[in-house]
Amino acid sequence: MKRLTPIALPLLAGFLAALGPAAPACAQTDSYMSAEASDPRQLGWMTGFPPPPEKLIMQPESDFFSFPKMRWTVCHIRELMPTRQVSRGIGAPVPLEYALDDGIDAVTFTPMGGGEPMTWEESLSANYTDGMLILHEGRVVYEHYSGCLDETGKHAAMSMTKSMTGLLAEILVVEGQLDDTAQVSAIVPELVDSAFGSATVRQVMDMTTALDYSEDYADPEADIWLYSKAASPLPKPEGYEGPNGYFEYLQTVKQDGVHGEAFGYRTINTDALGWIISRVTDKSVAQLLSERLWSQMGAEQDGYMTVDAKGTPFAGGGLSAGLRDLGRIGLLMLNDGKLNGEQLFPEKVTENIRAGGDKEVFAKAGYNTLEGGSYRSMWWLLHNEHGAFAARGVHGQTIYVDPTADMVIVRLASFPVAKNARIDPTSLPAYQAVADYLMSK
Amino acid sequence: MKRLTPIALPLLAGFLAALGPAAPACAQTDSYMSAEASDPRQLGWMTGFPPPPEKLIMQPESDFFSFPKMRWTVCHIRELMPTRQVSRGIGAPVPLEYALDDGIDAVTFTPMGGGEPMTWEESLSANYTDGMLILHEGRVVYEHYSGCLDETGKHAAMSMTKSMTGLLAEILVVEGQLDDTAQVSAIVPELVDSAFGSATVRQVMDMTTALDYSEDYADPEADIWLYSKAASPLPKPEGYEGPNGYFEYLQTVKQDGVHGEAFGYRTINTDALGWIISRVTDKSVAQLLSERLWSQMGAEQDGYMTVDAKGTPFAGGGLSAGLRDLGRIGLLMLNDGKLNGEQLFPEKVTENIRAGGDKEVFAKAGYNTLEGGSYRSMWWLLHNEHGAFAARGVHGQTIYVDPTADMVIVRLASFPVAKNARIDPTSLPAYQAVADYLMSK
Repeated sequence: MKRLTPIALPLLAGFLAALGPAAPACAQTDSYMSAEASDPRQLGWMTGFPPPPEKLIMQPESDFFSFPKMRWTVCHIRELMPTRQVSRGIGAPVPLEYALDDGIDAVTFTPMGGGEPMTWEESLSANYTDGMLILHEGRVVYEHYSGCLDETGKHAAMSMTKSMTGLLAEILVVEGQLDDTAQVSAIVPELVDSAFGSATVRQVMDMTTALDYSEDYADPEADIWLYSKAASPLPKPEGYEGPNGYFEYLQTVKQDGVHGEAFGYRTINTDALGWIISRVTDKSVAQLLSERLWSQMGAEQDGYMTVDAKGTPFAGGGLSAGLRDLGRIGLLMLNDGKLNGEQLFPEKVTENIRAGGDKEVFAKAGYNTLEGGSYRSMWWLLHNEHGAFAARGVHGQTIYVDPTADMVIVRLASFPVAKNARIDPTSLPAYQAVADYLMSK
Repeated sequence: MKRLTPIALPLLAGFLAALGPAAPACAQTDSYMSAEASDPRQLGWMTGFPPPPEKLIMQPESDFFSFPKMRWTVCHIRELMPTRQVSRGIGAPVPLEYALDDGIDAVTFTPMGGGEPMTWEESLSANYTDGMLILHEGRVVYEHYSGCLDETGKHAAMSMTKSMTGLLAEILVVEGQLDDTAQVSAIVPELVDSAFGSATVRQVMDMTTALDYSEDYADPEADIWLYSKAASPLPKPEGYEGPNGYFEYLQTVKQDGVHGEAFGYRTINTDALGWIISRVTDKSVAQLLSERLWSQMGAEQDGYMTVDAKGTPFAGGGLSAGLRDLGRIGLLMLNDGKLNGEQLFPEKVTENIRAGGDKEVFAKAGYNTLEGGSYRSMWWLLHNEHGAFAARGVHGQTIYVDPTADMVIVRLASFPVAKNARIDPTSLPAYQAVADYLMSK
């Protein structure tokens, strides 16, 4: 296998490459084309009948998820891979309320690590933003689409999918359907000989499992590649004898160290959690997302999830959804499960998540831009003065919930590099500045 | 390539195998499992986490579209292949009105070719019906789900997709955006050296092109196989040098005979028509379906279309949609473009289609169960006393419009054999009997 640069990784590997521990806290994008120059509408991907060869975006993944093509692909995952519907049902959506605030674009902040002050509006391009939604006191105060996205489009949520899977698991825990103190092997016996078998459900939910799992992209035998091959929905190549699908792959993962001692951000934890919640409910993650969230929250659009060759949804990164529907998820997290006058899950669910994980365990992973934070049920806790917490996905996806400011921010983006630590410097201070602005009104 | 029986054909080939001219007019299903015994819920396809090997439905197509697995697959196409959304938009759906009539199940009819009288209810199982909707005077009088389908599901429309493409083309003709007397090569110059180049748009729309196109499934070099390979959305095998995608394949089709002399039911006509309407509008068939129909008609669900490896929607057979939404299409055809108080396309569109095609030209194709009929703009005209016309797709799909009875019937089905002539004997007389029953009330 040839060496691939991180931005030319296969999609599934790309999903995994979030939030590297050693990424520098700077906002520069090296020599990449600007957001304006790389706008997929500008570049004309997949236009024409047929598109000329230089405008085509196709398999393999190393092509369709390379920058700048990736800026088109994040809105068109289903056109390249099999997917499973996350149904909103067939009733009428419940429209969000609006109270647009045209002062937000001028809000100014100083990026992390210093540098010149920047306006909110400038940060949108700096972060290759495709969609931006700000909800304050339950109403939309800011909405912006760019690049491949519009209000009827769906965008890859990337690792924010993990937070959806974690939320489902936490709901099941609070409802008593899932025991988070149980050993995984007691629920999924097939995992008994894997690293997961001896971990507790909670350790999987908080990613404190000790896994022998290499993401050295330069090593063709690295686990990340084996995982990608197993997870691919395409027919396996002749002679392939490795695991087929998420579930088979998970059984091959070995332990390295002691569970519970350190936070280790590994997507396969979420796939294991997807297996666990599917086993206890006898429903796929896509079906659970539909039944518990999408069909209950007045969603405007169906979502969808990528699947492996056996139809298993990619619990760790496969969701695509509309911007406003992810805003509805944010409102549910902000308002302890209440939306449109209904309680969709017990308050205890968000209470548990907002309590956060073990900060010392988290600190060992060395996330520069999230110092003092923690990780709980697949949500990122900032533990800042506002008690903010977030779903986060590579290339800049976030659902950022600020309970003090009564604010939710959803960003969908296609930043050239698969490192959110590169985006945080022009995002996290911007979110804080908007929160302060909204609170001061 | 090994010989495949017709029911084990790859999906794309399966789409093509509609309405063979020489099929006997009988309703027996040979030794196939009954509708009840082959119900996918009964057989438990794709249940369990993971599904055990004997319950798995996967690539290749010869597996997933074989009977009885096909009875699951028709509701799950997107889980096996890349697809493109046919968006309903994000507004509220316009619910259908209901006036359910519990007398319909007992309506009795005599199958074509004689045999014992049968009730409507019995015909549902005889035809492996997954969904049945009857609309009378604009209201739902009968609704039934079985097999893989429910009210939130989507089902493969198979060759009914052709009628959607034909409807779009007829709309463009009436609106003056498409000249149906033009030579195809004047619109799509890339087709100048193919059989289509010298045909008129109307000959393509009515499938009276003279094509050198073999569907001899036993011949591995038959065109049907080359077409299937070209159209597959999967990456092409190493060393493959044939056409990639619908558009490239169409350019290779040669002429055999004189255009306009005989009806010849060939799916590739619809793919050519898809190219034509995409070229004149600069929009894909999926986008046109959304803009002109799905987002205008109060649809409850998005539809979707399968695509080739370059993202081109399968205009000849790739649509999946909900039962009620196809009912809305039927109402539009019945009421000359009017639905929910709005005129979505000019009345002249359905007037042109209902006028029918050339009966003599149609008769040459020898359709036993459709004697005296014709084909116009990819719709089947029965030219019976009620002026009924229909969209039809293999394995039993239909949108049947009876203007005299003010009735629309939509059936979605998964009949074991890809021959509608096997289903017509217990369908067409049943539709007539229900029409008579509704008119006599």
